[in-house]
Amino acid sequence: MMFSTRLHNAIVAKKTAALVGLDPRWGQLPKSLKAKAEAGGGPCYEIMARAFEEFCLRIIDVVADRIPAVKPQSAFFEELGPAGVHALQRVNKAARERGLIVICDAKRGDIGSTAEAYAKAYLAGEDPNAAPFAADALTVNPYMGTDTLQPFVDRAQECGAGLYVLVRTSNPGSGEFQEVESKAGKVYQQVARAVEQISAAQEAGTGYGNVGAVVGATYPAELTELRQTMPHVPLLIPGYGSQGGNASDVAGGLDERGLGAIVNSSRGIIFAYQKGDFAHFGEERWEEAVSAATDAMREDLATHTAVSALQG
Amino acid sequence: MMFSTRLHNAIVAKKTAALVGLDPRWGQLPKSLKAKAEAGGGPCYEIMARAFEEFCLRIIDVVADRIPAVKPQSAFFEELGPAGVHALQRVNKAARERGLIVICDAKRGDIGSTAEAYAKAYLAGEDPNAAPFAADALTVNPYMGTDTLQPFVDRAQECGAGLYVLVRTSNPGSGEFQEVESKAGKVYQQVARAVEQISAAQEAGTGYGNVGAVVGATYPAELTELRQTMPHVPLLIPGYGSQGGNASDVAGGLDERGLGAIVNSSRGIIFAYQKGDFAHFGEERWEEAVSAATDAMREDLATHTAVSALQG
Repeated sequence: MMFSTRLHNAIVAKKTAALVGLDPRWGQLPKSLKAKAEAGGGPCYEIMARAFEEFCLRIIDVVADRIPAVKPQSAFFEELGPAGVHALQRVNKAARERGLIVICDAKRGDIGSTAEAYAKAYLAGEDPNAAPFAADALTVNPYMGTDTLQPFVDRAQECGAGLYVLVRTSNPGSGEFQEVESKAGKVYQQVARAVEQISAAQEAGTGYGNVGAVVGATYPAELTELRQTMPHVPLLIPGYGSQGGNASDVAGGLDERGLGAIVNSSRGIIFAYQKGDFAHFGEERWEEAVSAATDAMREDLATHTAVSALQG
Repeated sequence: MMFSTRLHNAIVAKKTAALVGLDPRWGQLPKSLKAKAEAGGGPCYEIMARAFEEFCLRIIDVVADRIPAVKPQSAFFEELGPAGVHALQRVNKAARERGLIVICDAKRGDIGSTAEAYAKAYLAGEDPNAAPFAADALTVNPYMGTDTLQPFVDRAQECGAGLYVLVRTSNPGSGEFQEVESKAGKVYQQVARAVEQISAAQEAGTGYGNVGAVVGATYPAELTELRQTMPHVPLLIPGYGSQGGNASDVAGGLDERGLGAIVNSSRGIIFAYQKGDFAHFGEERWEEAVSAATDAMREDLATHTAVSALQG
């Protein structure tokens, strides 16, 4: 089944566009998890990787029945070397086995056969053996040009996977190059049109293609504009929660049915025990904090965005 | 010692700006190497990773005394999963132990603490234990903005490593977003100025800072222009050899001393046994083909570029 169809079904089944980012950071892990990993012994990176894996797997257990997808951040696993990426591989696998869509956030990009190698490393449809780091979708960087995205697009079509192209990012300096403007529009608008062209050609029933776009929630007006520029493009919206965006900021990214976008929260959910509304659970009950924060995000999205298709 | 100083010394010592790209591709490996790896048994990815590692290590043995640096391409190792990146780790280590500068070509880029995690994964100065995939430099993507490059810049300064920012790439469609032009110039020119600003502030004796730029050899006029826009920025020039560029195309990237740039050739050297001037060595004598191709590239560069400092 195509990525867009699987994603669509998952969002409808879970009745929410909430996406949980798996960004394990050693310094923020609950003490009990670190102690357990340390007790197992071995080299430093292996201890940390073991803790990262358990942390992510336990989050997956908490959220799997309530959200459509998770987004593991490759950087934190790579930081631990081969032991870390081995943990990433197992986290991807475990999440997919629990029925979650896995969007591997690795922001890859390169030319020709090199792009093809990246695509083969990460993109898998429903086949667990289609790629070593088998994920349902991968984030990619468009700076080098649409021709360099093509090997990713081809591989995704071949195996039933998806992509999310960086269009407009949520960092303070995102405008520096993304807003450079010629007669044909700003860079991010030109990237958006290129992505729309690819996904429009792939649409097959859900209204959306398999090539999505990353559009930050920190610029609500642009989100609405880009939703219109890219009517066939599924969006991935970072910036909700700890980066400052709220549910009304992301509303413009979803269509009138409450579909067409997934909204990411990472720290606000996985480290909910540390600060904010759910800190009262404390470090020992960190999974309950994850659970409560997930419910709160689902409710916040349901209140502030269109959800007709989801409640139907 | 700073990256720019170590790179400078290595170029002067080896009397060449030639950089060899380590892009192992299973389909192109010499049969004898594949057979040996297969004889060792084990899972498919491990067999391939073993062959990639031996292939790269034998190339390193051939070229280590004659070139300043190698550029392993992360994608080909990632394509083999954890076994592949383990091989990348060992290839980086072996090359550094042989006195080569290692530029890990991974084109990473992300925001804030995620960028920091990538930097910690790859950037190491002279300390072999400073990063799990310890390399002397890393290629990075500027699309998200200069603020997202800063964690890489900070980490590089801290540990004596370097960076190469994608400015102008060598693929046919590189102009699509890189040439979008506002009053302040084209995107790639604006990226170039941002990189120059960072590296100019770091210059300490060699004329160059530690933050370099990737500028394709397929646009010789732009290479000359960008050399002028970025007087303090060490260049990494891909596109020589199999991508169509020749030594006179890259000449504009080097300064009058023959310094300030390294010129990459991957397939033209590592798979020299397969086609071109050195195919006569044949598959069994593939290392002699690597050796002859390396010498030919050194000679080609020496003939067509300024080399006063190198011959002094």
